Parts: sequence; structure tokens; C-alpha cells
Amino acid sequence: MFQTIEWTSAGTVRLIDQRKLPVEEVYVECRDLADVAHAIRTMQIRGAPAIGVAGAMGLALGAKTIRTDGFAAFFEELSRRGEELLRTRPTAVNLAWGIERMKRCAEKNRDLHVPGIVQALIQEAQAIREEDIRGNRQMGEYGKAFIPDGAAVLTHCNAGALATAGYGTALGVIRAAHAAGKRVSVWVDETRPFLQGARLTAWELQKDGIAVTLITDNMAGHLMQRGRIDLVIVGADRIARNGDVANKIGTYMLAVLAKEHGIPFCVAAPMSTLDLSLKAGDEIPIEERSPEEVTTWAGIRIAPVGISVVNPVFDVTPARYITAIITDRGVARPPYGASLEALATRA
Amino acid sequence: MFQTIEWTSAGTVRLIDQRKLPVEEVYVECRDLADVAHAIRTMQIRGAPAIGVAGAMGLALGAKTIRTDGFAAFFEELSRRGEELLRTRPTAVNLAWGIERMKRCAEKNRDLHVPGIVQALIQEAQAIREEDIRGNRQMGEYGKAFIPDGAAVLTHCNAGALATAGYGTALGVIRAAHAAGKRVSVWVDETRPFLQGARLTAWELQKDGIAVTLITDNMAGHLMQRGRIDLVIVGADRIARNGDVANKIGTYMLAVLAKEHGIPFCVAAPMSTLDLSLKAGDEIPIEERSPEEVTTWAGIRIAPVGISVVNPVFDVTPARYITAIITDRGVARPPYGASLEALATRA
Repeated sequence: MFQTIEWTSAGTVRLIDQRKLPVEEVYVECRDLADVAHAIRTMQIRGAPAIGVAGAMGLALGAKTIRTDGFAAFFEELSRRGEELLRTRPTAVNLAWGIERMKRCAEKNRDLHVPGIVQALIQEAQAIREEDIRGNRQMGEYGKAFIPDGAAVLTHCNAGALATAGYGTALGVIRAAHAAGKRVSVWVDETRPFLQGARLTAWELQKDGIAVTLITDNMAGHLMQRGRIDLVIVGADRIARNGDVANKIGTYMLAVLAKEHGIPFCVAAPMSTLDLSLKAGDEIPIEERSPEEVTTWAGIRIAPVGISVVNPVFDVTPARYITAIITDRGVARPPYGASLEALATRA
Repeated sequence: MFQTIEWTSAGTVRLIDQRKLPVEEVYVECRDLADVAHAIRTMQIRGAPAIGVAGAMGLALGAKTIRTDGFAAFFEELSRRGEELLRTRPTAVNLAWGIERMKRCAEKNRDLHVPGIVQALIQEAQAIREEDIRGNRQMGEYGKAFIPDGAAVLTHCNAGALATAGYGTALGVIRAAHAAGKRVSVWVDETRPFLQGARLTAWELQKDGIAVTLITDNMAGHLMQRGRIDLVIVGADRIARNGDVANKIGTYMLAVLAKEHGIPFCVAAPMSTLDLSLKAGDEIPIEERSPEEVTTWAGIRIAPVGISVVNPVFDVTPARYITAIITDRGVARPPYGASLEALATRA
């Protein structure tokens, strides 16, 4: 079994290099905050909950090298280093959530000497990781009822163990259904340009012995038309107060297709993905990445030199397309304004 | 300017190798029918109208080596060789249409000596090529009214000069609008797995100086949602009597998205793409190609070893999603049963 990300006994952060999968299973060791920021920016680690954990662990590494004795100066520098991590990727709110939680932990321990605060932060980052795994398993328990026995489920991108601290959100729900003895088969979109579906989701499910079939991103409509998809389930990078969901580019397209074919469309995400500060999805910043991700693969050109490209990494699925949002605190149903708020205010 | 396919003065068939574009612009010289069959099967040449021309030229090459003096034996062998070509690709009807037309030409010239019939066949194959180019220009004239000045047009796969004998179907319509002085910008889907959009359409339009922006196949929904696409125009591989259209996998998805966003969805194809023998699209055979097209690129693995894959090359868009079918004989509008029949029976 692989570990997506962990705090090592040597006081470093070890993560599996998701750029190299499935061809190579190699790990990267991050010794300081800059290493973690680089890993997030270059997508050695990706997936909203996973980069939430990475952000927290990166900040714990960052805290270790703050040279001051006073809390105020310590906290100011910690916040500055948190901002540095935040700038790596703009769309997933879990990164901000993880950093915010680390800052709250520092404040809670302000009466300790700085070395004590740093110890508390290191423990908090590890707690965030463990809670994420537990949350995913909880989500699986809540979500498995959405998967009928014998169902063919379509997923997009990777919302699996690799996108989280372990187990997964959308794949966690599929894993829980499988573990409960249901026969499940999974269609996975390859998910251009980064191929998270082909490289990561296919690899994870194959390891678990769950039936998986890979398709390109333009095949789902055809399969739905032929009655070969019973359910769509995806993860999320940020959820607005009204239930609009930002997720990997192509998710919106699947939601429209699911609606056209009368197929349920579910989102699985921990409560840390919910951004109550945003009224609706159009306020979510959409990251645009380099054109080279589209025009080349492993250094090979697949488009003419000088071609114009857009590369938005996420899209927003309006709440009206979503059958249910499965969280670690329970299942939200439309209208999401009320149901998400109820889950958020529950202890 | 490149030539997609031509009959050379040396009596061979020369075609641009579409597997090598856009990195290399190299030509393949086919000396016999087996060379042409190989070029079609391996997609050195592709696109429904282009493989119609290739089939006719391949059969002309095949006719040259039939060793008999009697028409009956000649025709029997010609038909057998036509069958060999037909087996290369199942979905595009233009291949069958081109071969059928060659056989009719042979019958019309049955009173000649065999060498005279062969000469007539060589001329017929070249006439089919020239008619295809003229037909595309005609289609462009009929279709350009669908493109408003300043429009952003989305196209999928390659329905351009490379998919035809020259000029193109969907791209022919765009070219005609551009030539008429309209400002047109084109979004092109990269079109996995073979990347005809990224490699061929982007290359063609860039050469013509028409504004083109490349996207992956999962971005169109997002762009439509943001109001950045005014029209979708695609080619066709086979059109049933009721107006259902088989075209590159992913076309159906775009039609559903266009409907959801109230965007016109047009098909451009010559009358040779119409298959009056089929009542509806569900009767169209859908080619399934090798999984390796999905799991590897230029020899590099992009998915786990042993992963299950489906690779349907086409899908069927029901007529109800289609705003208009632009042909070389005029524009068909719903209901297509009547409008297509009217065009088919027009002299």
C-alpha cells in the first residue's frame, strides 16, 4: 500500500510523486516549506484534500525555522509563510483551510515557548492528515447507498487515495460500496491534460481489484446514450454556499450529460471543501495553467508550434445539476443553501 | 500549400502522412492497392471524404494489375478488390460510395477493352477528387451564412482540407466565411485519442491565418457556460435517412452541450456521406480501434499496464440536436427525412 503524504520520523514530509505514476512509484522527501510549495505547484501532489494536508505539513516545516522568541513575531512570520504556500494553487479551498487551521493552533498555544508551539503545529498537521482519512471513510459510509449493486459508475480526474491523505472522496464512496460486497464497475475519464484519470485513478482501482475501464474525455456521452453508465460521482475543489461546485475541468460537461440522460450526479467532498464566504460558484477563482500542459506530452509536441491555447484547470457545476453532496458529516440534498449550512453548524 | 491526396504523373497515389503532422510534413507514395489499404487502416489518411477519394484511387491502382481480357472476370476481380478496401474502416460511408462509383464506371465502359476500362477508372478516381474539392467550396458558399461576423466557432476533430480532397467540410464553411471578410475565431478540441484537432485542424487553420485556439475535449462546456462559443460546426462520417449523424467520438457530447446552452449545432458534409439505406443512426456500425491508441502516446505509456479500455471511434448524434446539415447541394433543415430526400433526388 502506498502513502500519499506523511510526516516522517526524521521530521520531513514524504509524498508519492504523482507526476511519475503509473510508470514509476517514487517518493519525494520535502525538507522545508519551499520543497512542499514546489511539490504543490508542480503537482507532484494534487487533489484538494491532499494539498490541504500538504499545506499544513509544509507550514509545520516552515515553523521549525522561524528564529524568534516572541509569539507576535512568530505568528507574523508564520502567517507570511502561509501566504507563500497559498499562492501555489488558487482554486482548492482546502489549502487555505489547512493553513488557517494551523494558524488557529498556533494562537491556541500562544502561551507556550516557541519550540512548544512548533511541536503543537507538527502534531496538528499530522492530526489533519489522520482526520482526513477518517473523514473519507465516514463519507464512504454515507455515500455507499448511492451505488446500487451491479452499478457502472463514471468518475473524472482522481478523487481517490492520491487526492487525499488516503482512501479518497469519490473513490472512497466506491471503495465503501465495494467493501460492502456490492458489485461495482468504474468508468474513468482519462482527464486531459494532466491525465489524472488514466495515470492515477486507473492505477488505484487496479491495485484494489475494483473493475475499471479507461475512456477518453469525449466518450461519456456515447456511453450514457447506450445506457452503460448508472451514476456519476466526482470530488470537489471548492463548494460555494449555494452548492455550486468547482472541480476538475470537464466535470460540468458530465453534469450536463447526466441531466440529459436522467442519471444521478453526485459530489463527494469533506466539509473542508466548503467555502461559506462565497455565495455562488461564479466567485470561485479558476486556475489557468501553462499551455505546455496541453501542447506537449513528456516533451513530445502534439500541436503546432506557436498555437494559442487556453488551459483552465477547473470548471463550476451549478448546484441545480447535482443530485447530492456527500460529506464527512452527512449527505446534503437540494436546496443546498439550507442543507450545507445545517451540516456546517452541526458540532 | 499541401495536397491531401493526388494521382501522380507516375501513376501512383501520393498522400500526406497525417500520422506525422504537425511535427513533420512528409508524403507517402502508394504503388498498389495494398499500400492504399494500409494507409487508410493506419490512418495515414483519414476523414470520410478523403478516404472516399483514397478508396477510389486505391481501386484504380488495383484495376491496373488485373490480368484478364474479359469484362466479367475483370469486374468480378475488381469487386473483390473493392471489398478488400472496404474492410479497412467500417463507419464512413464515403469509402463504400467511392468504390461503388468506380464499379459503376467500369460497367458503363464494359464495351471497351480492359486497358480502356482501366484508363476510364483512373480518370474517374481523379474526377471524384476534383468533384470533392468543388463540392466543399459549394458547401462553404451555402454554409457561410451560419457564421455571424465576429463569431467564435467550435469544431471537433478535423473536417478540413486534410479530411477531404481539399478545402474541407466544416473548415470549408469557416474558410468561406473568412474569405467573405467575416471575422471568425475558432476553438478546436484536441480530439483524443488520435489528436486530429490538435495536430491537424490547428495546423491547417494556423497555415491559413485564421485565429485558432486549442482546448482539450473537456473544456467546451466551461467555455459555453461563459458565453465564449457562438456556434458548433462539425463534419460527418455517415448520415442516416432521418438526419442522425455519425461523427468522431465526442460530437454527441458537444451537441448535448450546445442544446443546453441554446447554441446552434451544424453539420457540414457532402451528399456522398448520406446513407439512404439506413433509417436511423442506431444502424450505423461504430468502429472500435486498438486500446493502445488510448494507453500510449508515441510509445510512452500514459496508463497502467493491463488496464481495460474501450475505444469507440465515432458516436451518433440524433437529428433532434442538429440545427442544419450543410451539403454540397444545399442546406437541409428539420425534419431531415423530407429535406435530405429532397436534396438526394435533386438532379
